[in-house]
Amino acid sequence: MQSIKTEEQHKDSLKERLYKIVFHADTPAGKAFDVILLFAIIGSLITVMIETVPELKEEHKKLFLFAEWFFTALFTIEYILRIIIARDKKKYIFSYFGLIDLISTMPYYLALIFTGGQFFVVVRSLRLLRVFRVLKMARFLGEANQLSKALKDSREKITVFIIAVLCVVFISGTAMYMIEGAEHGFTSIPISIYWCIVTLTTVGYGDISPETPLGQLLASVIMILGYGVIAVPTGIVTANFAKQNQDEQKSCPNCSKLISNSSDRFCGKCGHDTKK
Amino acid sequence: MQSIKTEEQHKDSLKERLYKIVFHADTPAGKAFDVILLFAIIGSLITVMIETVPELKEEHKKLFLFAEWFFTALFTIEYILRIIIARDKKKYIFSYFGLIDLISTMPYYLALIFTGGQFFVVVRSLRLLRVFRVLKMARFLGEANQLSKALKDSREKITVFIIAVLCVVFISGTAMYMIEGAEHGFTSIPISIYWCIVTLTTVGYGDISPETPLGQLLASVIMILGYGVIAVPTGIVTANFAKQNQDEQKSCPNCSKLISNSSDRFCGKCGHDTKK
Amino acid sequence: MQSIKTEEQHKDSLKERLYKIVFHADTPAGKAFDVILLFAIIGSLITVMIETVPELKEEHKKLFLFAEWFFTALFTIEYILRIIIARDKKKYIFSYFGLIDLISTMPYYLALIFTGGQFFVVVRSLRLLRVFRVLKMARFLGEANQLSKALKDSREKITVFIIAVLCVVFISGTAMYMIEGAEHGFTSIPISIYWCIVTLTTVGYGDISPETPLGQLLASVIMILGYGVIAVPTGIVTANFAKQNQDEQKSCPNCSKLISNSSDRFCGKCGHDTKK
Amino acid sequence: MQSIKTEEQHKDSLKERLYKIVFHADTPAGKAFDVILLFAIIGSLITVMIETVPELKEEHKKLFLFAEWFFTALFTIEYILRIIIARDKKKYIFSYFGLIDLISTMPYYLALIFTGGQFFVVVRSLRLLRVFRVLKMARFLGEANQLSKALKDSREKITVFIIAVLCVVFISGTAMYMIEGAEHGFTSIPISIYWCIVTLTTVGYGDISPETPLGQLLASVIMILGYGVIAVPTGIVTANFAKQNQDEQKSCPNCSKLISNSSDRFCGKCGHDTKK
Repeated sequence: MQSIKTEEQHKDSLKERLYKIVFHADTPAGKAFDVILLFAIIGSLITVMIETVPELKEEHKKLFLFAEWFFTALFTIEYILRIIIARDKKKYIFSYFGLIDLISTMPYYLALIFTGGQFFVVVRSLRLLRVFRVLKMARFLGEANQLSKALKDSREKITVFIIAVLCVVFISGTAMYMIEGAEHGFTSIPISIYWCIVTLTTVGYGDISPETPLGQLLASVIMILGYGVIAVPTGIVTANFAKQNQDEQKSCPNCSKLISNSSDRFCGKCGHDTKK
Repeated sequence: MQSIKTEEQHKDSLKERLYKIVFHADTPAGKAFDVILLFAIIGSLITVMIETVPELKEEHKKLFLFAEWFFTALFTIEYILRIIIARDKKKYIFSYFGLIDLISTMPYYLALIFTGGQFFVVVRSLRLLRVFRVLKMARFLGEANQLSKALKDSREKITVFIIAVLCVVFISGTAMYMIEGAEHGFTSIPISIYWCIVTLTTVGYGDISPETPLGQLLASVIMILGYGVIAVPTGIVTANFAKQNQDEQKSCPNCSKLISNSSDRFCGKCGHDTKK
Repeated sequence: MQSIKTEEQHKDSLKERLYKIVFHADTPAGKAFDVILLFAIIGSLITVMIETVPELKEEHKKLFLFAEWFFTALFTIEYILRIIIARDKKKYIFSYFGLIDLISTMPYYLALIFTGGQFFVVVRSLRLLRVFRVLKMARFLGEANQLSKALKDSREKITVFIIAVLCVVFISGTAMYMIEGAEHGFTSIPISIYWCIVTLTTVGYGDISPETPLGQLLASVIMILGYGVIAVPTGIVTANFAKQNQDEQKSCPNCSKLISNSSDRFCGKCGHDTKK
Repeated sequence: MQSIKTEEQHKDSLKERLYKIVFHADTPAGKAFDVILLFAIIGSLITVMIETVPELKEEHKKLFLFAEWFFTALFTIEYILRIIIARDKKKYIFSYFGLIDLISTMPYYLALIFTGGQFFVVVRSLRLLRVFRVLKMARFLGEANQLSKALKDSREKITVFIIAVLCVVFISGTAMYMIEGAEHGFTSIPISIYWCIVTLTTVGYGDISPETPLGQLLASVIMILGYGVIAVPTGIVTANFAKQNQDEQKSCPNCSKLISNSSDRFCGKCGHDTKK
């Protein structure tokens, strides 16, 4: 009976070790697992991408079939493994990443039952969301947090800005529809607004472009506006980044020099101990 | 006689309550009214937009007629309600928003009398201006004020910048007209200047593009100039945003750490009470 | 003899008054003169512009001839007046603005002697330079100085940046020439480099665009590079603007609040007299 | 025997002087050498460029042959000279710049042996790398260091940003492929992603552009996203530039005015000696 117990213990510790490898990234094995997973995800995404290229589609049909089969098998094994070793199986299955993991394994099986080709591309693309699982554990986390914090702080200002841009775009779109009209490609107000967005954001496809002098004048005004107006979101986000940097600053109480890294103990200039 | 007075009082208090709902946004009912109004405005604008799409125009003629009739009725009722409950009727009618409200109700009635179709699109588009009435009361007000303050502070610098850009555009436009000439699409100096604006703002439609080596060289210079010069409005606006952020900062008198939110009383690092 | 003297004095004071009007802008009459001059310059430039529009050229030939004659007469009178009232005639004539003034009056007279049409467009465009004479005296001067100071401080950094951009553009241009080749529009390395500049600056005419998968991949890399790299000149200029703003700041010695306007005497928060 | 020694000494000092001229840039002769070298490199690069222009290729064949021969001779002499005067010959030959110098002299000799024309263009383009040798010694070094420091500090944030952009681009690319399909130019997911990058970076060639209403709506969202998102790298880099500027600042301990140049000893406002 003791032997069973130790076997149980042995199993448990194996499960525990596997759990650390699969769900965490702080051990070398865990990191290796994450890297392999990342390559598998990217590999499966590249397969989805390349499969749609007409020239390659026909030629390498078998290769793509094999790749899809291979990645499906890999993700299935991984999914089953995750369920087995998860501490709280239910919680994992119905968690955000649990559902994404399930969806990632499904396309191939669904394709065996149904036959609506195109639709499965979207389902397979959802595997991209798994990338975030890997990134979540990575060293970029701190940077990503800072980025999203700066964007969150800017959220309300940027909302106001986008409302203002939409108003400009609606008014100019209507005006351009009146000025240029259907004969120059501005066939309706929605198309005119589309053209306005293309112009204001300085994308400028050129599929539609003004041809009357008045239309070109208004277009010029919109362009210069768009060129200047890009300053606003940039200004908002930059000021928030600068604020974050400053929050980490202090100035030396002895010589008044700014110490940009607040974790520094001694002033870089006069050597004053700021923790005294 | 007393009963009449109470009725009067009752009426007054109803009027007062309606006034708060219609003109203010700090009660739940007032907020609900604003949201409904916002949806009505956006709905009427979408109708204006979609009505110009050739494919939909013919098919859903009756639907558009009904929508226009519906929004007109809604805005008419609202306008009459506003006049009835306004404290100073004359002041409201001739105020900026009073006139906008009037114009918003008119297009359908005018269309019954006159029959110049196209022109009413512009009048109906003016309903967009009503959006600002709703926004004026919204929580974005503070942010919008900060934005417009930063832009106002930048006004003079941006004027200088735009004059400089116009000079560059005039000189390069004339030069490109001489270099490329009418056979490559630069048919006149105004067209050349239009092309220059399209290029300098990095829009780049491609409806006109230089074809001689010298023209392409000059175009390259203009592009790199435009690419670098966009830094100027961005720099101006950003510096003003940063200034606004800094105006709200103070540094802890005890440990010198910058406190980015000036309404904070205690230093986040050493806990020093800055109001002592 | 005394009467002659007073007449001389009278003449002198007239000359002196005219001098103030023509060369300075601090009197109402001087300001009015500057505004008229500005309108005359802009008017003559618009004439140059519109004259090249083929549809208008033929129709309004007489109008353009009259306008050119009118502006020439105006500038001639102004030039002669300036010589008469200048304190140091030689200095004025050979000064930068003296020469510009002379050139501005010449095109019409030259056109009477020579008959090389096109060339005079350039000479007439030089009148634009006179705009700066008017601006020099205007209220924008301070702002323009700040702008040019920020740009001057950024000069060396921007030079390094442009050298780096040119290197990237040369290498990618050569690579694209090898990858895409003449059959896809990349007929030579200079054309390839031109395309690279068009792409890196996000102008994107679309007159030449990559068609091979490898070319599109490289183009994508160049675009993302260009998209990120625009941050560099913006960052340089913005940091310099922010520095200028900060040079004008001080913080209250009492409560540590930053006072953004260094000419303020009292702290906006605690009322501390910073000049004590 | 003494005469030999002095000759040796003489030779040595000549070698030493040449060493200073060729490898350093702090003497007038050294600077002149660098400038000549810079012109030779640029000249040889321009030859590579112009040689590919079809119209000039045939006409000036002999001129190009002579130029290539001339630059090859020049670089060969320089390379041999560098080997002779280098203090540690082996170290120089196998150093980064030693190899670049060798490659720069080779194309002409290789072209005598092999005859694969096109390939040598790439080898000859590598001469561009020699530009950095000259720049390394120039006054731009400090600025370049600051630039690259700001970019290095931003590296991790920009990596996160680019990963986020690639995710957006992959998802929108797949969506556009489903919405627009092959008949509107979105022939495969890689092409769709290419279009997405062209749009998000605001390049906008217009070789492919959405034609369905839904596609144009999604494109509008991508454009506005791209327009706003450019704020992120700009914000990151700008904040780092501002930080660098601030690291050089201190504020006067007497009057609290910020002294932007930390090497200044006296406060510009109150004259307080900050080094006391």
